[in-house]
Amino acid sequence: MQHLKNCQGLAPAFLIRSQRFRISKSIIPSLSAWDGHLSSRWRSTGGHGKQKYSSDRVPKFKFALAGLLAGTGAVLAYKLHQGKVEWAASSAQLPGTQASALPVYSLEEVTKHCSLDNGVWVTYKGEVYDITEFVAMHPGGDKILLAAGGALEPYWALYAVHEQDHVLEILSAYKIGFLNTESLKKQESTNTLDPYSAEPTRHPALQINSLKPFNAEPPASILSDNYITPSVIFFKRNHLPVPRVDPETYRLEIEGLPGGVVSLTLSELKSCFPKHTITATLQCAGNRRSEMNSVKQVKGLNWGIAAISNATWSGARLRDVLLHYGFGQEVAAKAQHVQFEGLDVDVTGTAYGASIPLNKAVSEEGDVLLAYEMNGEDLPPDHGYPVRVVVPGIVGARNVKWLGKIVVSDEESKSHWQQNDYKGFSPGTDWDTVDFKSAPAIQELPIQSAITHPAEGTLVDSSHGELTVKGYAWSGGGREVVRVDVSIDGGKTWHVARLRTGDKEQQPAPSPPPGRAWAWKLWEIDIPLLHRAQELEIVCKAVDSSYNMQPDTIAPIWNLRGVLSNAWHRVKVKVNEDFKDRK
Amino acid sequence: MQHLKNCQGLAPAFLIRSQRFRISKSIIPSLSAWDGHLSSRWRSTGGHGKQKYSSDRVPKFKFALAGLLAGTGAVLAYKLHQGKVEWAASSAQLPGTQASALPVYSLEEVTKHCSLDNGVWVTYKGEVYDITEFVAMHPGGDKILLAAGGALEPYWALYAVHEQDHVLEILSAYKIGFLNTESLKKQESTNTLDPYSAEPTRHPALQINSLKPFNAEPPASILSDNYITPSVIFFKRNHLPVPRVDPETYRLEIEGLPGGVVSLTLSELKSCFPKHTITATLQCAGNRRSEMNSVKQVKGLNWGIAAISNATWSGARLRDVLLHYGFGQEVAAKAQHVQFEGLDVDVTGTAYGASIPLNKAVSEEGDVLLAYEMNGEDLPPDHGYPVRVVVPGIVGARNVKWLGKIVVSDEESKSHWQQNDYKGFSPGTDWDTVDFKSAPAIQELPIQSAITHPAEGTLVDSSHGELTVKGYAWSGGGREVVRVDVSIDGGKTWHVARLRTGDKEQQPAPSPPPGRAWAWKLWEIDIPLLHRAQELEIVCKAVDSSYNMQPDTIAPIWNLRGVLSNAWHRVKVKVNEDFKDRK
Repeated sequence: MQHLKNCQGLAPAFLIRSQRFRISKSIIPSLSAWDGHLSSRWRSTGGHGKQKYSSDRVPKFKFALAGLLAGTGAVLAYKLHQGKVEWAASSAQLPGTQASALPVYSLEEVTKHCSLDNGVWVTYKGEVYDITEFVAMHPGGDKILLAAGGALEPYWALYAVHEQDHVLEILSAYKIGFLNTESLKKQESTNTLDPYSAEPTRHPALQINSLKPFNAEPPASILSDNYITPSVIFFKRNHLPVPRVDPETYRLEIEGLPGGVVSLTLSELKSCFPKHTITATLQCAGNRRSEMNSVKQVKGLNWGIAAISNATWSGARLRDVLLHYGFGQEVAAKAQHVQFEGLDVDVTGTAYGASIPLNKAVSEEGDVLLAYEMNGEDLPPDHGYPVRVVVPGIVGARNVKWLGKIVVSDEESKSHWQQNDYKGFSPGTDWDTVDFKSAPAIQELPIQSAITHPAEGTLVDSSHGELTVKGYAWSGGGREVVRVDVSIDGGKTWHVARLRTGDKEQQPAPSPPPGRAWAWKLWEIDIPLLHRAQELEIVCKAVDSSYNMQPDTIAPIWNLRGVLSNAWHRVKVKVNEDFKDRK
Repeated sequence: MQHLKNCQGLAPAFLIRSQRFRISKSIIPSLSAWDGHLSSRWRSTGGHGKQKYSSDRVPKFKFALAGLLAGTGAVLAYKLHQGKVEWAASSAQLPGTQASALPVYSLEEVTKHCSLDNGVWVTYKGEVYDITEFVAMHPGGDKILLAAGGALEPYWALYAVHEQDHVLEILSAYKIGFLNTESLKKQESTNTLDPYSAEPTRHPALQINSLKPFNAEPPASILSDNYITPSVIFFKRNHLPVPRVDPETYRLEIEGLPGGVVSLTLSELKSCFPKHTITATLQCAGNRRSEMNSVKQVKGLNWGIAAISNATWSGARLRDVLLHYGFGQEVAAKAQHVQFEGLDVDVTGTAYGASIPLNKAVSEEGDVLLAYEMNGEDLPPDHGYPVRVVVPGIVGARNVKWLGKIVVSDEESKSHWQQNDYKGFSPGTDWDTVDFKSAPAIQELPIQSAITHPAEGTLVDSSHGELTVKGYAWSGGGREVVRVDVSIDGGKTWHVARLRTGDKEQQPAPSPPPGRAWAWKLWEIDIPLLHRAQELEIVCKAVDSSYNMQPDTIAPIWNLRGVLSNAWHRVKVKVNEDFKDRK
């Protein structure tokens, strides 16, 4: 309880100190929200922790506040730690000095310490750290808790700001022991004999919707931290086990062209055709399905708002490949679709399949790639190694991974996923009345946006008189997002958010040509808190270059498969007492 | 009052008789709605007519009901008139027999008889008819009242069903006199000396929003009677006086191509380039603006739901013309827009202007035409004679009429209408804060639909247990309408409407290639009336091939110019007593 008291006591002091530093307005609300969230969590769990921590281990950083205020990825925060070396030197756990005296832990033991109640332990390069007291001072806010009970490495790989010596210095102060050898091996994924035995290792931050097949999304809170989503946390949507493909024996077959079947090696694909790179957002048709479930149960994985991610993709243009192997007017006169078949198969040997309209596949502006790189590296196994189709502006389901075959055809793919899935229906259509032939296969997706910050139920500190709201927005078909409106009164009044097309420190990307805006926009806004509301309903809605807007509510777009969930995103938050007590 | 009583007495008899004829379900509600509408009107005006009509002139057609039931354009109705010749022969006003005994009227006198209260007079080829008693028996319902007090010719030109001898026979029974010579001349439009002196004659059915410049839309009730909107009632949206262009001296200038300025005659345009024909819907950005006005006043013409129409357009492809005069990679590397300038100018000599993205102008799939024909004839003066641009899928404002100049350019048109008008803003943006540079010029329009039948406030007769609802749906950018959902309970439950891509007697048009669905779809549905509701809120919403949907409500898409008004269309009707008394 002493520990709790101390930590709670810190917050007001931080807020007073903050005024000494001229920190830009935009980062202040990220503290407010984070602080509110933490307070709320602590209040709800009370003092029921199973383990006590001595309060005298709270580091007395002179400028701890600055780091806390600086928000995600702010290098500045660490630089303001004038007292860090002095403090680290006084610590009993200086690296290399008393290492041998420290105990050895198993991974199981570490895993138990995954919350503020039970203590927050992490591992790094085989060493164990108890960072419970540091959580409140972490410049990246409570995102640090994602790593609680496990390894730091995957998270630091996401946030390059950690690759600095003084970060290791700070960490060293919290070292409490070592991981045993067996546990170190356990941190690697283990293989079994089931069809999913060859599944790749996944990032622990991913929120898993289904393990076999693997379907997972990143926590919404970190989704919009990066304009380009790191591959490890890019949402994963697999329909079948991940096939392990040998790049040496890999062949891509192409059917339906005048010269007969083409069989292409990976190195031919890479060397015979120019390499193109595009930045494109992929979104699962079921993104935000969980909101539809709240209206009436649908069939499908219960995706949150993060079954969408943005990456750079490099590969050969599908158009170039088809033209090279004889596509022309003669084929175009008969064919209307290009089918794709994956190397992922079910127990009967049936492969995943999908198709797209021919004009999208062959048009210069379609930008369809046979991609072999994601974010500048070979495709990861979860994203289709060695080759996948990237069909920008089109629903994720047609971006076939582990691509084995391309068929230029007069008909759509016969696959289940093209014919009897991934289609939209009226709210009045149920499983008794549905006729899958009556609806077109989803290709281009409609305008979409969601709020990534603050989170639902957060207690926001509004003592600064404004609230920062963040999110993403994207539209299908290459339609550029031209505006995002945000409301904090449930949609009565609206404010226009700032949009960006790169990370904050980067130059914004040049405007894409009309109809080729394949990448999302991240947005942010500071909204004045004028009223003494105890609860706020935050709402966002985006507008694309065709001035399509999102529907207001979910019920009228509800459909039995729970796809195309793009109504206004709504997040309810409570307002901190501090604010209510102000004049 | 006797007249009123008789007419009101007719309705129940009609309804009972209707069961003898096996008339398809789909036409019954059109009677219900019509009948309700008429009853409602009569009730509201009561017996305050200034003129009395003898009830003994009500024709005793044996099968009058059938005509009434058959709805708009049903030839069958007339064929069921077994008693018509017998009755016509007994009439005192047989054509040619007692003509000289009939009085001569002025147009002013005819004009006074424009309602059921004052009597319904019409003229046809210089003769005057009092058709008051026929209104209730008109197979096309109360649309006949549109012609009240004026000439029949323009309406009959819209509905070819009238071009039959027996129609003239029926009409002859109502002849009451002749139009004087002066009045006959007055029926032609007169010229004055103002800038609008050369304006063409317009169809009297048009509902005028602004006379100078001329802006008008057809009555919503007749909009969806024709899949191809007749040119005379196609909505008119002029920004300036209509220029009268001499086809002999007309020149189309083209700038921005390597060979310098091109000057093209009308006959060169017609003879040097292949003639292409497309069916395309044009919609004014301000269509349905009146609904936005109901939220908060906007600036702009108060359009109803009919600032949208569908026509066939023929002409040279803009792409072909540009390629012929040297457009290629060299130009494409610099240019991004194609500007258009009209021959319509304001008092300072400034022409109407607009531009479209280059890729739309030159792509094979863009289908942009330099059109010289509308619905198979020379463009009418109001629609840009002799040449206009038709940019299918794009807001009406860029489809420049009376085209004088084309400029391939690296920038958008500098015209007021491109830069400071026809842009969308957030509901929170007002005239004090608006920055027109912050929003893109409207090009592709979003998904749209509206209910053309029944009309707002109608009293619907639901004794047949169902309600027929009709309307149109369209989306910009060549996105095909794939579904229209209709509700009669304000959006709680939804039914899927039947869509059509041609007139009922025609074969449906073949599906357009993806992204080239330029024409609207008309829709219709018969919805069971299960509940004893006294009032129904009918709602429609459409879905396009990118699964974009219409927003639920207007307020959140309100904008200061009142453009892009595409929320669900809502129509409230009252339910007839008859239905409520049924078990």
